[in-house]
Amino acid sequence: METSLNSSLLDAAVAELAKLPGIGRKTALRLALHLLRKEPETAIALGTSIIDLRNGISYCRICHNISESDICPICADSRRDRQTVCVVENVKDVITIEGTHEHRGVYHVLGGLISPLDGISPSDLEIDSLVRRVREEDVKEVILALSPTMEGDTTSFYIYRKLSGMPVSVTVLARGLSIGNELEYTDELTLGRSILNRTPFNSNED
Amino acid sequence: METSLNSSLLDAAVAELAKLPGIGRKTALRLALHLLRKEPETAIALGTSIIDLRNGISYCRICHNISESDICPICADSRRDRQTVCVVENVKDVITIEGTHEHRGVYHVLGGLISPLDGISPSDLEIDSLVRRVREEDVKEVILALSPTMEGDTTSFYIYRKLSGMPVSVTVLARGLSIGNELEYTDELTLGRSILNRTPFNSNED
Repeated sequence: METSLNSSLLDAAVAELAKLPGIGRKTALRLALHLLRKEPETAIALGTSIIDLRNGISYCRICHNISESDICPICADSRRDRQTVCVVENVKDVITIEGTHEHRGVYHVLGGLISPLDGISPSDLEIDSLVRRVREEDVKEVILALSPTMEGDTTSFYIYRKLSGMPVSVTVLARGLSIGNELEYTDELTLGRSILNRTPFNSNED
Repeated sequence: METSLNSSLLDAAVAELAKLPGIGRKTALRLALHLLRKEPETAIALGTSIIDLRNGISYCRICHNISESDICPICADSRRDRQTVCVVENVKDVITIEGTHEHRGVYHVLGGLISPLDGISPSDLEIDSLVRRVREEDVKEVILALSPTMEGDTTSFYIYRKLSGMPVSVTVLARGLSIGNELEYTDELTLGRSILNRTPFNSNED
């Protein structure tokens, strides 16, 4: 498989493409040859968009969503309800929830879930900044919109405990979601309904 | 699915990635977010390698293989046997056959196979340039190394007819290959053996 491709440029492109998740050397070679067959603009637009993406995007100072400026468009939007903060695992979940058009508040992106097996502890996540945000700003409700998995439930419970005693209601997405599935694969109708039917966090303890 | 991603840079990168074969919008988004999570060098190396690939690679004037110069490294290599020309469908087949280390001659890349259903006729392929090469250069043997499919066999037979009467022996890869499969999926041992056991083309007509 490590045959040289008779061109250092092709070698380099295949090696870089094969670093992407789910793309092996054979697929990488197929993609590179596809780009060579197409008109030059296709490859140049792809390459440029990837470089621009990485150079132009950073993270929102408030919610840690990706953003092209210091504060993301959602946090900067005065029509959004800043008293309702939806806590999500990652940037993709923001996109998924925005797709339902059911959440008019703002977000807080944790950057992962607590997972001792993967060595991810609360201090690796944006949990302290969430607690600070609740303490210092006028937050009335924290919606825990994490995947209904072991890691998601652990993280939800950890945050619930951290926020207990503060004048904020902590809710969790209605368990219309299928237990054990990742949030991002849930269809938008189900996900939208579970945002509307969110329940107080401690009602799950019965 | 066409939800805006709250960032024109992310939108652009996802749109470009989703143009690649076998990559849909969901996978494209996953790849883009992966690149955002990694250190900047990863994305910049990928983008640059794609642009360099497309800008730096053209096609060999003699054999139509990809090349960074006017003549590809194989055609330019004086140790290769220029009297033996291996005819292949595409660039990937050159790489596959080079991987067997059984072919010491040169190549001729057709750029496809004759396929009336797909509207590909002999004039769309580098067949005339092959005939010219055989007529004008000292070619002793043409090895037809095309996939053992309907299109491959049609193309082989067309080339065989075009070369008949010329002082060149036309051979075909030994049919150790499984009929109906694509050449690129054959293991290197089988493929190497079928290069060694190549037979005169007209023995297939019995």
